[in-house]
Amino acid sequence: MTSIDERTSVFGPPARAALTRLLDPHSIAIVGASANPAKRGFHAIRALQQAGYAHPIHPVNPAAGQILGLDVCASIDRLPYGVDVALIVLPAAAVADALRRCAAVGIGGAVVLANGFGEIGDVGAELAAELAAAVAETGIRVIGPNTSGLINVTSGANLVGLQDIPQGPISVITQSGNMLLSVVNDNRAFRGPGFHAYVGLGNQVDVRYDECLNELARHPSTGVVAIHSEGFVDGRSFLAAAADVVRDTPIVMLRGGRSEVGRRAALSHTGSIAGHDAVATAVLRQAGVELLDRPDELAVVAGALATCAPIVPGRKVAILSDGGGHAALAADALAAVGIELAELSERTQLRLRQLLGSAAAVADPVDVAGATDTDPMVFAHAFDILVRDPEVGLVLIVGLFGGYHLRFDPSLRESEDAAAEVLLALNAEHAVPLVIQSCYADVEIANHDRLRSHGVPVLSSINHAVRIAAALERRGRRLADTARRSSLALPPAAPPIHGSGLLDEPAARRAVEAAGIEIGAWTLAREVADVVAAVAGYERPCALKVVSQQVVHKSDVGGVRLGVVAADAGEHAEAIIDAVCTNVPEARIDGMIVTPMAAAGVELLVGATHDPDFGPVVAFGSGGVMVEAVRDVAFRAAPLTELEAGEMIDETFVSRLLDGHRHLPPVDRGQLARFLVRIGDFVAAHPEISELDLNPVIARGSEMVPVDVRIVLSEKITGDHDE
Amino acid sequence: MTSIDERTSVFGPPARAALTRLLDPHSIAIVGASANPAKRGFHAIRALQQAGYAHPIHPVNPAAGQILGLDVCASIDRLPYGVDVALIVLPAAAVADALRRCAAVGIGGAVVLANGFGEIGDVGAELAAELAAAVAETGIRVIGPNTSGLINVTSGANLVGLQDIPQGPISVITQSGNMLLSVVNDNRAFRGPGFHAYVGLGNQVDVRYDECLNELARHPSTGVVAIHSEGFVDGRSFLAAAADVVRDTPIVMLRGGRSEVGRRAALSHTGSIAGHDAVATAVLRQAGVELLDRPDELAVVAGALATCAPIVPGRKVAILSDGGGHAALAADALAAVGIELAELSERTQLRLRQLLGSAAAVADPVDVAGATDTDPMVFAHAFDILVRDPEVGLVLIVGLFGGYHLRFDPSLRESEDAAAEVLLALNAEHAVPLVIQSCYADVEIANHDRLRSHGVPVLSSINHAVRIAAALERRGRRLADTARRSSLALPPAAPPIHGSGLLDEPAARRAVEAAGIEIGAWTLAREVADVVAAVAGYERPCALKVVSQQVVHKSDVGGVRLGVVAADAGEHAEAIIDAVCTNVPEARIDGMIVTPMAAAGVELLVGATHDPDFGPVVAFGSGGVMVEAVRDVAFRAAPLTELEAGEMIDETFVSRLLDGHRHLPPVDRGQLARFLVRIGDFVAAHPEISELDLNPVIARGSEMVPVDVRIVLSEKITGDHDE
Repeated sequence: MTSIDERTSVFGPPARAALTRLLDPHSIAIVGASANPAKRGFHAIRALQQAGYAHPIHPVNPAAGQILGLDVCASIDRLPYGVDVALIVLPAAAVADALRRCAAVGIGGAVVLANGFGEIGDVGAELAAELAAAVAETGIRVIGPNTSGLINVTSGANLVGLQDIPQGPISVITQSGNMLLSVVNDNRAFRGPGFHAYVGLGNQVDVRYDECLNELARHPSTGVVAIHSEGFVDGRSFLAAAADVVRDTPIVMLRGGRSEVGRRAALSHTGSIAGHDAVATAVLRQAGVELLDRPDELAVVAGALATCAPIVPGRKVAILSDGGGHAALAADALAAVGIELAELSERTQLRLRQLLGSAAAVADPVDVAGATDTDPMVFAHAFDILVRDPEVGLVLIVGLFGGYHLRFDPSLRESEDAAAEVLLALNAEHAVPLVIQSCYADVEIANHDRLRSHGVPVLSSINHAVRIAAALERRGRRLADTARRSSLALPPAAPPIHGSGLLDEPAARRAVEAAGIEIGAWTLAREVADVVAAVAGYERPCALKVVSQQVVHKSDVGGVRLGVVAADAGEHAEAIIDAVCTNVPEARIDGMIVTPMAAAGVELLVGATHDPDFGPVVAFGSGGVMVEAVRDVAFRAAPLTELEAGEMIDETFVSRLLDGHRHLPPVDRGQLARFLVRIGDFVAAHPEISELDLNPVIARGSEMVPVDVRIVLSEKITGDHDE
Repeated sequence: MTSIDERTSVFGPPARAALTRLLDPHSIAIVGASANPAKRGFHAIRALQQAGYAHPIHPVNPAAGQILGLDVCASIDRLPYGVDVALIVLPAAAVADALRRCAAVGIGGAVVLANGFGEIGDVGAELAAELAAAVAETGIRVIGPNTSGLINVTSGANLVGLQDIPQGPISVITQSGNMLLSVVNDNRAFRGPGFHAYVGLGNQVDVRYDECLNELARHPSTGVVAIHSEGFVDGRSFLAAAADVVRDTPIVMLRGGRSEVGRRAALSHTGSIAGHDAVATAVLRQAGVELLDRPDELAVVAGALATCAPIVPGRKVAILSDGGGHAALAADALAAVGIELAELSERTQLRLRQLLGSAAAVADPVDVAGATDTDPMVFAHAFDILVRDPEVGLVLIVGLFGGYHLRFDPSLRESEDAAAEVLLALNAEHAVPLVIQSCYADVEIANHDRLRSHGVPVLSSINHAVRIAAALERRGRRLADTARRSSLALPPAAPPIHGSGLLDEPAARRAVEAAGIEIGAWTLAREVADVVAAVAGYERPCALKVVSQQVVHKSDVGGVRLGVVAADAGEHAEAIIDAVCTNVPEARIDGMIVTPMAAAGVELLVGATHDPDFGPVVAFGSGGVMVEAVRDVAFRAAPLTELEAGEMIDETFVSRLLDGHRHLPPVDRGQLARFLVRIGDFVAAHPEISELDLNPVIARGSEMVPVDVRIVLSEKITGDHDE
């Protein structure tokens, strides 16, 4: 990250870094303040006053005078030196000039609301370029343009104007003001834990996700960072920042513009271009980000990650239900997200049987089968038994807890309230998180709110409850294995591979081998006699493949022969030369690659690309017909670790063929994972590689033999990357 | 369906059918009534009184006296003759006897609450058998046991005790009382349209889903049937009933026990055994049931199907948003469920541009980009433009409609209310359904409730809104193409195929051919000379395959030769005989099947099984490695139509290889669909077939050639099916 302090040091040493000043301002100028109550320049001031912002507010308007009891500054130039933040409430065309003036009076950062920049085509693009130039010249930090603003709930620095946001641990970064509204209103509906801060990044002319994430996640009031994004300007920096942040603070993310039509909408909204969805999904998850598929999960999952303990790795979920119908549905929903139920110990089952009687189901899912209808306290006793089972990592109560007094008899209320207190006490004592689904969660019930205020989610949707369990399970695993995961920082570049565009195969093979990656025996034979000698030197029949810059599809022009033995090697080599000369008269033949034919194995695809958003990315999947029909391919950002490579392999369908498919020996998964790690190290150190294809790789036992090796270098002068 | 009237006619001609009497009782006996306010036998009476049930209630208890102002009958025998329904509030062991007594006094049906039957193992199984015997003997119709009861909201016949259920068009059938609570409370939270009736089927000793569905769907107050099920006792009857019902009334279904762990829970809950999930999902969808993946969708989708017009087939969805962030997320969510956005006409886009100004996005998704912030009526005008575009089948408004006065200025309220009225008027005028997502949907807002009361869903979850759109789209298509779909009734059985267990291949081939299904040329050769002659008679090289009851895996013992030409046919035939005799000395060789080798084509799997729940089911998928790794297989109940076969093909990954994969000619999809239809007709007419396997079928152009034909007949005496 660029040093923020350096940028501002021309104005004398600031007490705080520029981004800290932006997100927690001790003074605010409203540039474009208005005395007209219908204008945003008026609302902005009123909102700060209503939110109880206790620091100076400086309205700026040429008309001077007073607005809402505050003296108005006639121009930016007359502001006191060193105001923390300017909220720019001016039309797009006036923004660049205003920023220059702000910088001149020592303003640390600006929030630019205007739209009409990059997101609306050519006219806007020109204004966007001007804005970027002003930022670059002055060093002022800018959030926006085309943003709803920012909010520091704790200090009352509310530059959005949305009131009554409950204070709590959730910090939000979005590219949409409406998403803020959704999250705040959903949090209210779920009675979630509230917010610390909000930043609307808009078009990201300057401040981007990675910096914002670092700043907010580092703040002691933040317990989780909830992100909505339509695209990253510097995806790799975000990955590295996220992989670091998640060691302490969970990150939840909802991405907009994943589909073709969604991309179109995002482009016209914030000018963002979301990249390849499968790649983005894979690498963000690799960075430890909890990715959401549904907008309606953002508030609920963020709230739970901020307040619940993670699941201890290896432990499972116990369902405690007061109705078999819900139990089965909850078990189905857990299975659908890949979460296992606990195998309760015999001791646990025995104790549950004593508590719940003969009609109950005491294997997970536990169904109290009516035992709680007359005494809800039984739930607390059952929870007490479950949390002591070392197999249990989370208890999911499903049914109508908290609503017994509504469903059956008002007299049950006392027992329910008492049960809630016992649950809270047990929850505080044991590191086993508790999540409650109740059909009565949407009704205002005091014991539900008691539980929520101590961080126990109480929700009406089984699916939301299960989604929380999945997030807490991943969170627990991430915390445990973070040392075995990639930092996702790029290593220093290696001396670049010479050339540009498609390399000839011998050069590609040498480049891969130079990186210490074994690709099996091969020989470049320059003459027919060399071909014969090479084939004779291998124990197995060989493949011959013509090497010629002019030949792209070697098989199509007769440039490949398979199963060649020494006796007829000369004849085959001559035949290749004849065929190529006939079919591609202009071809200059540089020789032939001779490789011993691989024994039968599983056909895999191993590759890498330079993703425009996230940089070097490794691909793994099924070779052959599967990848065409099923698109059976997994991605990871490079460099990746062996753990990550193993997970990548497991994601594919073809992994099901690795453990001894038909008459083939099993493939050594560890060896395969290490092969992918080396490929990742290779492309991470060679930013000049735009494509690498080993397709197919024949995997058999511990051998991985690429049949073809293909490298495309970027067309740029490769010296650029030579550091 | 068995004639209900016949069953009850021994007691004289009843005015109404027994199931009608059960679901809309004109008199109710409470067997096991209690004066103890803590008992269910007391609650039950109080609940009926509170619900305003206006017909006679007869408490039954040996202690006689009065309960809640009603005279208590000392025994069932003393009840007036012909009470419609008895609610049996007795322990499991006392139920069978009570039923017999009920039947004796002309009671039409009973609701049995007790649990402790089939769902709790051996002891319960004995009681369950006793109960079934009582039902069979007396003809009394029974709902339960192990049920929460039933409710007729309209009449106040509330045998569950849950109060304050709003009246409306949703009829619910579940196997879980908690699911009723969930649906009712979710309906309340979403401010949905309310309920007509509820039936908890419990263990289904007698009344099952199909009868209940027919009875409820036929009722004029029912606009949709919402079902929760853990398994069908007679799945095929349900399919046929559903396929018929959905011509008039939509059916929404949530299934419990789909996963392995969920199945375990369901088994201990209602003793239900849910079958093969992929089969059940496929055939229920084939029957036109709107299947749900999430419990939290049941209330919301049921409500919308009851109140919204379906989407006219071929029309698409238009998104009308007041924020690009939500627009992109809504577009993504639609794409994820396979719903397309409308391509708005130039005229529509021009009119929107005039209305919304230059900052708006006027291609779908439409983003008003702030144009509504000061005048929400603009939404109504935009809707007016959209509904007139013949491409638009549904308008999805996303953002904060209805909440502008809360977000921006209280003065906007009037304009919002007026906009809601205009939307309602337009909605009534055009057959284009409107669904609204608003971040403020969970806040109590009058104009939202106005919209809802006229059947416009207003929801906070984009995902729920999109789920509704998907359901309305399918509903529209179903109504349009219902004539091209299977009734799912089984045809009369054909004369059965003789034999049992695995047929030898010539017999299997003859059986398939006898049904008019072409499987390509083949010859059964008895002698080596016949083999030579057969091969000579075919133009292509042939495959030889030994026929012997003692040889199961023919290839493994040398029983198969491929690519045989006339010149060496004798030699190959002798070699097969030698190999089989050596490897399987006890084998009696009955001959050899000679087939010309199929030209290269796409390898398909075509098969059928007799599903324990749903009867004959056809399977289609990829032959070879794909089906093993990906489980690329689709199912349909037989008989199926050509339309359904085409949809089945489209569901598979392998269908992507049918349009000219690599160097293969495209496969004729119509021909392939008709092939599947004929297979379906075949197995539907032959209930004695427990397995049929054509694997692989080589498809090339319009030819479908099965390489192997395998039929397994059920081990039962096949004469059973000879009608």
